[in-house]
Amino acid sequence: MFITFEGGEGSGKSTAIKALVKRLETEGHSVVLTREPGGTPISEQIREIILNKKNVEMDGMTEALLYAASRRQHIQEKILPALKEGKIVLCDRYLDSSLAYQGGARGLGIDRVYELNQFATEGLLPDITVFFALDPKIGLARIGANANREVNRLDVEKMEFHQRVYDSFMELARRFPDRYLIIDASKGPEEVANATYEAIQQKLHGN
Amino acid sequence: MFITFEGGEGSGKSTAIKALVKRLETEGHSVVLTREPGGTPISEQIREIILNKKNVEMDGMTEALLYAASRRQHIQEKILPALKEGKIVLCDRYLDSSLAYQGGARGLGIDRVYELNQFATEGLLPDITVFFALDPKIGLARIGANANREVNRLDVEKMEFHQRVYDSFMELARRFPDRYLIIDASKGPEEVANATYEAIQQKLHGN
Repeated sequence: MFITFEGGEGSGKSTAIKALVKRLETEGHSVVLTREPGGTPISEQIREIILNKKNVEMDGMTEALLYAASRRQHIQEKILPALKEGKIVLCDRYLDSSLAYQGGARGLGIDRVYELNQFATEGLLPDITVFFALDPKIGLARIGANANREVNRLDVEKMEFHQRVYDSFMELARRFPDRYLIIDASKGPEEVANATYEAIQQKLHGN
Repeated sequence: MFITFEGGEGSGKSTAIKALVKRLETEGHSVVLTREPGGTPISEQIREIILNKKNVEMDGMTEALLYAASRRQHIQEKILPALKEGKIVLCDRYLDSSLAYQGGARGLGIDRVYELNQFATEGLLPDITVFFALDPKIGLARIGANANREVNRLDVEKMEFHQRVYDSFMELARRFPDRYLIIDASKGPEEVANATYEAIQQKLHGN
């Protein structure tokens, strides 16, 4: 079982994922929690280049290729082995982030980035993709209020960019209705975490 | 004018390129010398990941994607701007290295790696590709004799690997006869440098 989590900045995604891990483990499941870009030493090195605030010259396609490289290593070294052992793999961001950020928001085209990612994923899609839907204005206001979080290169993009990211995820939810779960992330963190758990349970048990 | 240089380890490629730059500049040409992977700050950061000896877990497709990312940035930031200014761009390794190393020698397939690189290059091919043809046994023996050169991760690959690289370049020369120039690199460095200059002159002046 492969579940991925997507959503803009400040959507309560991390809190909901942590709560979900706890509940699944309490139920006796073997859970692997990982994230993109990153998840393996090589992928983390690639992550540093992508998120480095000094790399302002980075071309959109360069960025898409780096995400694909990081994803490839992550799949081969961590995701596939865990799935083969029958574990539940929870991944914070995956393919859909590339489709929404580089494909939609940066204008490379969702289809083009999807095609590029066929080289990286060889067709590995999640069973469930949870999208934490939140007006980007609210999400960024939440980030601003949290002084402990370091602001990275992507945070400083304009508001229109984050709006395009949001619109792209909603477009992806329409394209892939079978695997998408849309969670209303405007609620408080606890409520969002509960809704995420319930929705996944329903999906898992086919209700 | 875009000229790329390809060849296995110890083929005298660097010496020949340096001599060529000198002669072209003496003739009054404006020359930009660059290299792959690298050539821009972002590309150099990617280069470090690719060549890091500790990254033994690197998957072949990850490597191909990283080379493509590095290439993309290099093209956008350095090669295309220089070509637009009418300069002669000399690049130490380019697309054909990916085709020969990852496509041929690592077994990903030349066509597959070519297709992947369409995302990075958008079809930018060199006007001339100089291949320094040398039996890999001789090339590696030359490297071993040079104690000043640091041995990197790719150097330690098995001899069969280097033989497959060589065979792949010869295959590419058959596929792209219009842009390929094959130089006999078994000769001494000065002779190789002269032969390179002469062959390029002939190609440039259509003799």
